[in-house]
Amino acid sequence: MIMRIIENIQEMQRWGEAKRCSGRRIVLVPTMGFLHEGHLSLVRAGRKRGDDLVVSIFVNPTQFAPGEDYASYPSDLERDCRLLEKEGVDVLFHPPAEEIYPKGYQTHVEVERLRSFLCGAFRPGHFRGVATVVAKLFNIVRPHVAIFGAKDYQQLQIIRRMVVDLNFEVDIVGHPLVREQDGLAMSSRNVYLGQDERRAALSLHRSLVTAQSIVRAGERRRERIIEGVRGELDKEPLVQVEYVQLCDPETLEEVKRVEGESLLALAVRLGKARLIDNTILRP
Amino acid sequence: MIMRIIENIQEMQRWGEAKRCSGRRIVLVPTMGFLHEGHLSLVRAGRKRGDDLVVSIFVNPTQFAPGEDYASYPSDLERDCRLLEKEGVDVLFHPPAEEIYPKGYQTHVEVERLRSFLCGAFRPGHFRGVATVVAKLFNIVRPHVAIFGAKDYQQLQIIRRMVVDLNFEVDIVGHPLVREQDGLAMSSRNVYLGQDERRAALSLHRSLVTAQSIVRAGERRRERIIEGVRGELDKEPLVQVEYVQLCDPETLEEVKRVEGESLLALAVRLGKARLIDNTILRP
Repeated sequence: MIMRIIENIQEMQRWGEAKRCSGRRIVLVPTMGFLHEGHLSLVRAGRKRGDDLVVSIFVNPTQFAPGEDYASYPSDLERDCRLLEKEGVDVLFHPPAEEIYPKGYQTHVEVERLRSFLCGAFRPGHFRGVATVVAKLFNIVRPHVAIFGAKDYQQLQIIRRMVVDLNFEVDIVGHPLVREQDGLAMSSRNVYLGQDERRAALSLHRSLVTAQSIVRAGERRRERIIEGVRGELDKEPLVQVEYVQLCDPETLEEVKRVEGESLLALAVRLGKARLIDNTILRP
Repeated sequence: MIMRIIENIQEMQRWGEAKRCSGRRIVLVPTMGFLHEGHLSLVRAGRKRGDDLVVSIFVNPTQFAPGEDYASYPSDLERDCRLLEKEGVDVLFHPPAEEIYPKGYQTHVEVERLRSFLCGAFRPGHFRGVATVVAKLFNIVRPHVAIFGAKDYQQLQIIRRMVVDLNFEVDIVGHPLVREQDGLAMSSRNVYLGQDERRAALSLHRSLVTAQSIVRAGERRRERIIEGVRGELDKEPLVQVEYVQLCDPETLEEVKRVEGESLLALAVRLGKARLIDNTILRP
C-alpha cells in the first residue's frame, strides 16, 4: 500500500474525521523527522494499537529556544518517507510552518508546574511550544492514541497532563527509549557528535547504570546517587553537565530518597549537541 | 421533548462523538447560567444552526480575578432549566467544578495579544480562564458551531483567534448584544444594581448613542469621540469609568481615528457591579 502524504491541515482534518466516524482507530506518532530506530520503534508500537497510522513530521519552530538549533536541525525527508512506507504507515502529515503558525498567531498552551523542572529550567518556552503544537496536532489529526518516546520523559508527562486537563480524548502511550548497541540513547541530534564526542557520550548511559548499581547496593540518598552519576560524567572532559536530577516520575518534583520508583534524569552539552537521558530507579 | 441534563464529562463526550458520527450538527451555547433574554437569543440563534443544541452552564472559577464576584455570582438552576427546556434545548451540560478542574490541574490556554487590551488590563487571568474553559468545552462537547454574545466582544475575538490558532473545527458565531427596553445591555450582573444604580446605568448606552451621533456629525478623532462618551458617563456620579476605548474590531489595538469600522468599548464600576458595553462605529 502506498503511504499518503498530506501537507494541508484541512485535508488532514477531513481524513481524521471521516476515519473516526467510520469506526477506525487512529494512531498518531508525532516526530520532527530525521528518523532513527527510536522513532521506528514508536511507529511499530503504533501499528499494533489501531487501524490507521499517522506519522507527523514537523520541525516545530516554537519549541526551540533562542540560540538553539532550529535552523540547523537535521532533516532527510526522502529517507524518512522510505522508512515510514516500509513500516506500513498510512499517512505522513507534513505541514509547512506557515500553515501551522499563520499570520497573527498568538495562542499558547502551557502546563505550568511540570514545565518548570528539568529541561524546562534550561529551555525557556520549549515545553510551551511542545504542548501547543501537540494540542494542534490532536485537533488536526483527531487520533484515538498518540505515542511518545520515554527519552523525552518530561515531554511525555507534560502531554499526559495536558490531555487530562484539556479533556482531549486521546490515549497517550509512552514507549521505552531505544539505545544504540553501545548504550547511547538514540536521538536525531547524535549526528552533531564528532568521533571523540560520540565516545564521550557513552558516559551518559554509563552514569545511569552506575546509579542503578548504587541503588541496588542499598543506597537511597539523592546526594549519594547524584554524586555517583556526576563522578562518571566528570571523567569525560568534553561533557558539560547541565543537570542531574532525581525526581518523582509523575510530578517531576525532586525527591530526597529513592523510596518508590524515581526518575533519574540528566542533560549535558557535548560539542554542538545537547543530549538528555534518563532511567527509572527502583528501591 | 425532555431536555437531557449531563453532569459527567465522559458522558458528554460519548454523546458528542456519537452525534457527530451519526452526521448530526452540534451547536453549543456556553453560559454561566442565571439566564436572561440575551442568553435566550443565543439559544434561539443556535437552534437554527444545527440539529442538536447543547447549552452549558458552568460558573468558571478560573475566569474570576481575585476579589471578583465568583462566590456571589447569581444562579437559579431550576429557572434556567425551565427556560432552556422551553427553547427546545437538547442537552444541558452542567458539570461540577471538581470535574472540570481535577486535582493537579495545571494547564492553561492563553491568547497573548488580544487578552492584553480592554478588560484584559483590568481583570488579570480572566481571558486565560475563558480561553481555557472554552477549549475544554470544545473537547468535551465536540460542537460544530458555538455561539457567543457580542456583549463580551473581547471574549468573542479571543475565542475566534484561539479556534484558528489551535485548529479547533468549530464555527464561531457572534450574536448581537441584547438590550433591555430602556437600552441597558442585558447581563446576569445587572441584578447587583440598586434602584439608583440601575438608573445611572442607562448612561452607558446613552454614551454609546452619543458617540454614534458625534461620528455621524463628521467627527473622526479618537479623543473627541471618547470625550463625548466620558462627558455622558461623568454626568452620573455613581458611575466610575474603568476604560473607554476606540479600537480595531479585530486586533483590538487602539485606533486614532474612525476610518473603518471601529469598536467603541467601555467598562465601568457601578456599586457592586462591573458593567461593560460596546458598539461598532462606522465612518
